[in-house]
Amino acid sequence: MTKRFQVVGIGNAMVDVLCHTEESFLAENGVEKGIMQLIDRDRAVELYGRMGPSIEVSGGSAANTIAGIAALGGRTAYVGKVKDDQLGAIFAHDMRAQGAVYETPMAPGDAAHETGRCMVLVTPDGERSMNTYLGMSEHLGPDDIDTGMMADADWLYLEGYRFDGPDSHEAFARAIRACKAAGGRVSLTLSDPFCIERHRDAFHRMIVEDLDLLISNRAEMLAMFETEDLDSALDAAARAVDMVVCTESEKGAHVVTGGERWHVPAVPTDIVDATGAGDLFASGFLWGLAEGHAPRLCAQMGNVAASEVISHLGARPEADLGALYRAHGLA
Amino acid sequence: MTKRFQVVGIGNAMVDVLCHTEESFLAENGVEKGIMQLIDRDRAVELYGRMGPSIEVSGGSAANTIAGIAALGGRTAYVGKVKDDQLGAIFAHDMRAQGAVYETPMAPGDAAHETGRCMVLVTPDGERSMNTYLGMSEHLGPDDIDTGMMADADWLYLEGYRFDGPDSHEAFARAIRACKAAGGRVSLTLSDPFCIERHRDAFHRMIVEDLDLLISNRAEMLAMFETEDLDSALDAAARAVDMVVCTESEKGAHVVTGGERWHVPAVPTDIVDATGAGDLFASGFLWGLAEGHAPRLCAQMGNVAASEVISHLGARPEADLGALYRAHGLA
Repeated sequence: MTKRFQVVGIGNAMVDVLCHTEESFLAENGVEKGIMQLIDRDRAVELYGRMGPSIEVSGGSAANTIAGIAALGGRTAYVGKVKDDQLGAIFAHDMRAQGAVYETPMAPGDAAHETGRCMVLVTPDGERSMNTYLGMSEHLGPDDIDTGMMADADWLYLEGYRFDGPDSHEAFARAIRACKAAGGRVSLTLSDPFCIERHRDAFHRMIVEDLDLLISNRAEMLAMFETEDLDSALDAAARAVDMVVCTESEKGAHVVTGGERWHVPAVPTDIVDATGAGDLFASGFLWGLAEGHAPRLCAQMGNVAASEVISHLGARPEADLGALYRAHGLA
Repeated sequence: MTKRFQVVGIGNAMVDVLCHTEESFLAENGVEKGIMQLIDRDRAVELYGRMGPSIEVSGGSAANTIAGIAALGGRTAYVGKVKDDQLGAIFAHDMRAQGAVYETPMAPGDAAHETGRCMVLVTPDGERSMNTYLGMSEHLGPDDIDTGMMADADWLYLEGYRFDGPDSHEAFARAIRACKAAGGRVSLTLSDPFCIERHRDAFHRMIVEDLDLLISNRAEMLAMFETEDLDSALDAAARAVDMVVCTESEKGAHVVTGGERWHVPAVPTDIVDATGAGDLFASGFLWGLAEGHAPRLCAQMGNVAASEVISHLGARPEADLGALYRAHGLA
């Protein structure tokens, strides 16, 4: 029987605040380049006060992935927590306007935490350095998990960043149980090397016990399996998980499954802003799998979606991804 | 004696909510193409609910102009009203981060109106159709006018849109008196043909009694002087005002002053989003005047600044305008 959703994603719901900046700004303000740093509200206010003029675009890693799947015409839903404030309204609007189901109850207007935001500093090389105030997104708990929705998903897609927060592990466990009990499959993105350091044991347990698909980039794969050798890391991952995908920026992506391994080259692109590259790769890959395509073709689809999102500021697709797929002979 | 500010602008402070849309969306939703329509809060909620995924960028016509002058390194300040809410914080941040002075007190968090916003629908031809919920911006009153700041300005720049609102005419009068009494000069943008229809007498009075510089586009100039002939309109304007500037989109701009008239061709550009074209023309023109350049060169500077802002989504400059001027041999 066809399920209602091809992919249901769970992650930290937030709005990105993006600005172009010089390399020197990062050093002067203690921002580590290319990674995601968690910051508290005071630091968020301080850093924002020093940042240049910015634009606001809905973000959140898994949310970007789900938005991309919706943009491809996929049947998809997102679970993540915002407050009933102006940024929360923007986040909810953009998710629904893209065609995704988004029903997570907003925290009321008098809640203690605002909608989360991520200050994204984009250097001239297109690299993005992220400074995240989790705000309300951190407080997604088991009660926010609609088990009926999870049971109605072919794929569950979990965001590694979402391991931060008091009730997050329990929320994930509830979602996984409901999805698997109904025959669904579970995927995870490792999100960030420092996120792996914070939650290594929990990541490891999920990889061994729950995952059908692991998605990561090179740095995360090496950090997760504590090696400097990508082949060793991919081998270790493939022993635990049915399908493993690893992106390597401009070098493309590796797919390992069923004893086979492919390398799929990236789509050459003038990079404006790397924000969302991995997220949109996951959109293309997961949507391809859900549509029944071969893993290698799915990786090509992921590469094309990623190439679109790095060609402009912000991590949500602007072009017609379906038309891009046709232009690349993928559909 | 050098004044603190080269240009002080007064206008409706707001955040733009921009999305790409098809022509058919305008017709289906009763949006008139290419103009600014005022809408109430219910209509704003309804229209937003139908719009596609959007990005948020600080806007407001005179605010864009002042941001452009600040981006050029000009000494400039802005006066416009927001509420102490998330959009208000975004507006204030972006203005100050660009280098403009912005000290208008925010309305408190329990005020009846939110920070204004403008839903900008950008069609494939790059034309923008604006739907404005004025919110708190409408309530800028005489008490918000710092007469010391007005006296310390070489140029006052008034936004025609700001004629809407209960205390706006009185606020303008207070600003003009303080500026002129200290030897400053006064400029006005006509903003929009429908805005002229709403406030024809007040516009006319200001043109005859107060203005040193009138800035408009072709449609506004024709509407203001109730003619179909641009030459007649320019003649009528020049009889009342020392300097008259009229933009004509891809045809460039006309400058009339001291019995002379010049036409300055536009800078050819692939148009992505016309939002802010007139605003950034005004940035370049006013900054040029304040720097003591000849009117014809000022119009070239205006054209270059306008060409930058229409090359991307949003009405605030993204590129280094000074570098663009050097590339065009204007500095």
